[in-house]
Amino acid sequence: MTPDQRLVATAVAAWKLNIERAEKLFFALDDTQLDAAIAPGKNRLIYLLGHLVAVHDGMRPLLFIGERLHPELEAPFLIGADRAVTEIPSATALKAMWREVNDGLLAAFAKFTPDDWASRHNAVPEADFAANPLRNRLAILLSRTTHIGYHLGQAQLAPR
Amino acid sequence: MTPDQRLVATAVAAWKLNIERAEKLFFALDDTQLDAAIAPGKNRLIYLLGHLVAVHDGMRPLLFIGERLHPELEAPFLIGADRAVTEIPSATALKAMWREVNDGLLAAFAKFTPDDWASRHNAVPEADFAANPLRNRLAILLSRTTHIGYHLGQAQLAPR
Repeated sequence: MTPDQRLVATAVAAWKLNIERAEKLFFALDDTQLDAAIAPGKNRLIYLLGHLVAVHDGMRPLLFIGERLHPELEAPFLIGADRAVTEIPSATALKAMWREVNDGLLAAFAKFTPDDWASRHNAVPEADFAANPLRNRLAILLSRTTHIGYHLGQAQLAPR
Repeated sequence: MTPDQRLVATAVAAWKLNIERAEKLFFALDDTQLDAAIAPGKNRLIYLLGHLVAVHDGMRPLLFIGERLHPELEAPFLIGADRAVTEIPSATALKAMWREVNDGLLAAFAKFTPDDWASRHNAVPEADFAANPLRNRLAILLSRTTHIGYHLGQAQLAPR
């Protein structure tokens, strides 16, 4: 393993660890438990689960992996706040999408080279990237890893 | 900037962004506001502030930067849960330590080479590191970055 391969493998391992932590928390809960709010008047656990799937699905176009697999998650889990959209997928369906989306990302990451990670992501124009080469694909991976932690910290507060 | 320098610069930028987010949240609150719990019966904001300073101070020995600057924070903010230790530093004192510790880390990071980041951290023995080279200093930086996010997500829930 070259030094730069080791660096990106470390970042992918950190991502994977947080995916596993979230999976452990959400998958242990049934539909009733997932319907609980993390604190009075705050988001429900099922919203956080759907939100994470929707955000991770959005990493596919951002990292040039492909189109979103589930664009129908954008309205209830990205654009709208919790409870703004009343018809949402079931917990069982969201858990299946979680596996599909996150397994797909990991399979794609396994083929990324260090140069791929250091390259422009899809939301930054070429000219802007030339001016700021830190707006790369690794930055997306790190930001989305911290984003899992952000909502895991909240999910951990929910009464069981 | 070489590709591996770009990768580690991206990770340091992600750390810095989360430090700034936390600083923006905590520094805007006065002593009374920091005394609020994030949710009924949960940690107070001042505990999260002290906890983050204590964890970041612990990165100094872990990353071979130096000894802890404030070992006195371990008892109230690392070993004990919130309210287990009744005498804790004031919010003003914790904010000053926040600056001291985090500015010191950033100054140290500025001197780290990609090879430094890919090297063993201080809590993993040489033999274990040979078997698992992902237990490196970058892994600590990424884990502590996600840790800020974890508690920021919680802090964001506190009533203002």
